Amino acid sequence: MNNLFYSTDIRDGFVRFDEEESRHLATVLRHKVGDQLVVTDGKGMRYETELVETGKKGVIARILESELRAPEQRARLHVAMAPTKNTDRLEWFLEKAGEMGIDEFTPLLCKRGIRDRLRYDRLERIMVSAMKQSLRYYLPKLNPLTPFETLVQNTTAAQRFIPWCDDAPQPHLRELLRRDQDTLILIGPEGDFSPEEVALARAQQFQEVSLGDVRLRAETAALYVVMGFHWNQ
Amino acid sequence: MNNLFYSTDIRDGFVRFDEEESRHLATVLRHKVGDQLVVTDGKGMRYETELVETGKKGVIARILESELRAPEQRARLHVAMAPTKNTDRLEWFLEKAGEMGIDEFTPLLCKRGIRDRLRYDRLERIMVSAMKQSLRYYLPKLNPLTPFETLVQNTTAAQRFIPWCDDAPQPHLRELLRRDQDTLILIGPEGDFSPEEVALARAQQFQEVSLGDVRLRAETAALYVVMGFHWNQ
Repeated sequence: MNNLFYSTDIRDGFVRFDEEESRHLATVLRHKVGDQLVVTDGKGMRYETELVETGKKGVIARILESELRAPEQRARLHVAMAPTKNTDRLEWFLEKAGEMGIDEFTPLLCKRGIRDRLRYDRLERIMVSAMKQSLRYYLPKLNPLTPFETLVQNTTAAQRFIPWCDDAPQPHLRELLRRDQDTLILIGPEGDFSPEEVALARAQQFQEVSLGDVRLRAETAALYVVMGFHWNQ
Repeated sequence: MNNLFYSTDIRDGFVRFDEEESRHLATVLRHKVGDQLVVTDGKGMRYETELVETGKKGVIARILESELRAPEQRARLHVAMAPTKNTDRLEWFLEKAGEMGIDEFTPLLCKRGIRDRLRYDRLERIMVSAMKQSLRYYLPKLNPLTPFETLVQNTTAAQRFIPWCDDAPQPHLRELLRRDQDTLILIGPEGDFSPEEVALARAQQFQEVSLGDVRLRAETAALYVVMGFHWNQ
């Protein structure tokens, strides 16, 4: 399979593609009636389909076969990150994290972070694109901008980490990250987490860790933990 | 230290900054005569300096102290990668690899890769910027576009790896990557290495590896091996 397509409009034995996906299919890739396509709904379903309509009303395909694919056999990874001021950097992170494999992403509202509105439609499109690129059938969950305290107090993750720059030596994430437990990792803003935020996390069983003797941009640190998680598998 | 500056024009007890760095220092950061700055030459030197001139001829600083810093205490990492068609992606990789720590980068001329001219000045600027961002004193070596055979036949790296998509199972890079040996890792073009290229590498003691059951863009695979190398330290 070279390409994987996406739709959430799946009913009565047919897949209907939205305007953007239709344009891509019909105009860019120039698919014709009769062409066979593989489609996912981002919730695990894999549909073998055949194009029946490529007109201006939108592209429609008839379902030939459908299959529920099992999720990847690994622990779940949830990254919560204070969004970067430059949205390109956040978008780049989501694309790369999507290629590697991530299950949930929460933009985090931190004391020292930015408070701007996020373009969720853009972020979602990037995550859909990364899912298709990597031939996966599960779309990562994208949460709304969540206050630090709210996430930290409500998480049910079995293992939870807060990398931050402490003067005192800390264990590296690699020493504590277990392969077999659902994981939540927080990434702070450029100014790092505040001492109060760290204390709050500590009280909720977050493990304080270092990412090494490196000075990383926030989105680089975020991708490092995702890649480290997969290297650890 | 908040900022690290760069110059290669270091003589007679003075540091002279080029046009771009001068503009950044004088106009963006608005430094004044008397301000103290830390400067590197990218070859290990760390200079404590004091600004003596901020005029249109360029910024000049007087050296107060100089020190040769030891290189990072770890094995050397050399990545050779077939450049991506989209140069943004290659540039992102170099920026992130520079933040994590890389010692040498070779753009690779492969059978299935692109053959366009590279903007070396741009790539060098990105590597200088990443070096400054990460407060390092050693600029990674940037080699010219090198034919696959030339690199593979002339490398002296103690351990050398060629990740590629074989139908037969391969060990993951993480199983074979030793922490204490200078390392060369090749990253192929979107169409992967050709069987002849793999055979050539095999004959030169390259170890064939997988990067896992993932479908990664070339620049993501390249960054994954850099981040995996550091996770492994």
